[in-house]
Amino acid sequence: MSHRDVVELSFAADAAAPAEFAVNRSAAGGPELSGTSGRAVRDSGDAFGTHRSVVPPGSLPQPAWRVDNDFSTLYFGEVLIDVETLTIDAASFRQIEEAAAADGDASEAAIGRRIVETVAERGKQHNPVTGSGGMLIGRVRQVAPGHPRAQHLAVGERIASLVSLSLTPLRIDAVRAVRRASAQVDIDGEALLFASGAYSTLPDDVPERLALAVLDVAGAAPQVARLVRPGASVCVLGAGGKSGILCAVEARRVGGPTARIIGVESHEPYAAQLRELGICDDVLTLDARDPVRVWREVLSANDGREVDLALSCVNVADAEMTAIMVTRPRGVAYFFAMSTSFTKAALGAEGISKDVDLMMGNGFAQGHAEHTLAMMRSMPAVRSLFERRYG
Amino acid sequence: MSHRDVVELSFAADAAAPAEFAVNRSAAGGPELSGTSGRAVRDSGDAFGTHRSVVPPGSLPQPAWRVDNDFSTLYFGEVLIDVETLTIDAASFRQIEEAAAADGDASEAAIGRRIVETVAERGKQHNPVTGSGGMLIGRVRQVAPGHPRAQHLAVGERIASLVSLSLTPLRIDAVRAVRRASAQVDIDGEALLFASGAYSTLPDDVPERLALAVLDVAGAAPQVARLVRPGASVCVLGAGGKSGILCAVEARRVGGPTARIIGVESHEPYAAQLRELGICDDVLTLDARDPVRVWREVLSANDGREVDLALSCVNVADAEMTAIMVTRPRGVAYFFAMSTSFTKAALGAEGISKDVDLMMGNGFAQGHAEHTLAMMRSMPAVRSLFERRYG
Repeated sequence: MSHRDVVELSFAADAAAPAEFAVNRSAAGGPELSGTSGRAVRDSGDAFGTHRSVVPPGSLPQPAWRVDNDFSTLYFGEVLIDVETLTIDAASFRQIEEAAAADGDASEAAIGRRIVETVAERGKQHNPVTGSGGMLIGRVRQVAPGHPRAQHLAVGERIASLVSLSLTPLRIDAVRAVRRASAQVDIDGEALLFASGAYSTLPDDVPERLALAVLDVAGAAPQVARLVRPGASVCVLGAGGKSGILCAVEARRVGGPTARIIGVESHEPYAAQLRELGICDDVLTLDARDPVRVWREVLSANDGREVDLALSCVNVADAEMTAIMVTRPRGVAYFFAMSTSFTKAALGAEGISKDVDLMMGNGFAQGHAEHTLAMMRSMPAVRSLFERRYG
Repeated sequence: MSHRDVVELSFAADAAAPAEFAVNRSAAGGPELSGTSGRAVRDSGDAFGTHRSVVPPGSLPQPAWRVDNDFSTLYFGEVLIDVETLTIDAASFRQIEEAAAADGDASEAAIGRRIVETVAERGKQHNPVTGSGGMLIGRVRQVAPGHPRAQHLAVGERIASLVSLSLTPLRIDAVRAVRRASAQVDIDGEALLFASGAYSTLPDDVPERLALAVLDVAGAAPQVARLVRPGASVCVLGAGGKSGILCAVEARRVGGPTARIIGVESHEPYAAQLRELGICDDVLTLDARDPVRVWREVLSANDGREVDLALSCVNVADAEMTAIMVTRPRGVAYFFAMSTSFTKAALGAEGISKDVDLMMGNGFAQGHAEHTLAMMRSMPAVRSLFERRYG
């Protein structure tokens, strides 16, 4: 299987099918179907996995407190995975480390035990403090009938999940290794993807760690490609970080040589690396939490004008107004930063009577994994920087 | 002055001017200008009001803890207003009432005292618990040079502010009345609008209370008009509330007779009133916090398809997934609801691999007050309902 087989599924992309699928089938357990091989499959379940929610029953699996991780029987549309590695969300891993240290044992074994406890309690690696999850790597073990790609997903194929562990039913049989530096945990265990859950087969030509680092923020570049026009002016806040670089690169690719790309990055080493890439017209070493100063400097760098598109990729709170102020009226302020406050953005724009479109970053875009991996392959300097940083 | 003179200012609409204005002028106090009449005006200040921020100095006035409400001298671009009435944000007023009751005196006088205390401490009616403000009505007393509409704003004109009290410098000299039912407080006092602050002159032909009720959510209709195409399918969550009705009406106006408008409203009396208006093809009495159920019912009401545009106007948390699920891939889920969680929306869409645009409701749109008042005039049945409810 070549890297061209990176796929993502939007179950809802075929609009007629999921409705019929979910509406016509009972959510209660139906009769068992004899699968072509492997475990029995019940003739029930929906594309979102509500059939696996135990507390509260019938809810979506992400808000659910507990999901059913008994994989002795599968449901319609499910993909069973032999899990190799969990990549824990960075905020979640830090919280687990700190809680373990507070209890007097911050060893890898203690971290592993806490993860096992969460999964035993909730049926998923959904950190109850941070609310976040992560992703997983494993091999396909069985594909239940009713999955939209049931004919294409081969048993034994190595895939990475592109939906959060916070909604992914998981059972851990043993912890093999805990790697602090990469927040990864090797395990023996099984997990499920629902029919609506995107995944990517792992490419042959990109090192696994690099692939995971890139897939983690794969939504950024395709969203940028949709918003940038040739010759556009674009300001990227947090431009030296992982998603920030991908946004700046994509803005240049799509905007072409006449586009004006302005990066704002407060961390000087990152700003220097971004300058070396030669993607931006200007890289301003400024704190994105100072809206008036950043606004003035961005205007100076853009012939006195506000930009067509601002992309907020910061990892700190209180940068909403900066993105709004640097954007021209009827331009777009796009917030990838998970630290964004809805009310600060919405009320902030109103407070300065600024008529800009305010968009929330959706981590999923059709074709996003392939799009981002292809971009990485076509930009050797960016790939080299990412391999040094994240490889 | 007729109702045609309802204006809103986006100071930034003339992109070149504000940059020069704010960049070239010192933020520190310059020499005093002798105004044509009234109080002296300093030759400094910017369109956003950072010159009035005391704690922290130089910040934007909304996030500032305290702003300068000494109006003996004005700054460039400021409009001084003789205030008549404050309309306190509903959540803020409720908090003030409850805090007063907890202290054993929930009288109107006690509520008034608390508002006076907040304004004395912060220089603005910015509720420190809820973070929200409100709006005000008053008459123009002086327009400082440098305001973009200095030639058009007449002294004595009666206006309503369209930016939040949470950023509006205010001084209260006396409280004249506190009206619980409408969360309004009549005062003697003065306030300032900055050059970037939108306002509306009060129309002659619409009762004041109705005008205020409508202006409070004036951003909704013009945003809907930008997103709806003739024949589109639209789902409005919280469709029987104030902003929900305006969204549904506007979707029908722009979408025409072939559009399919589906309203979701959990409060049966509101649902009944919405049905009587005859705007929606279907009004579903459902709780927007049950995404799977609402998704199924909306699909049933839309020939098995997800809608082009979902508008969330609910006043409760946890309705994000519902808006996302009912929207077709590459459709738009637009969140007017201030109860929206950025992370729940962003991670929720990714969790079900749903490629929809997620937009945050911007309370300001160029021309929004005039747009919404005009809509109200053209729809007698809607106006009649609003007069009964809010007039």
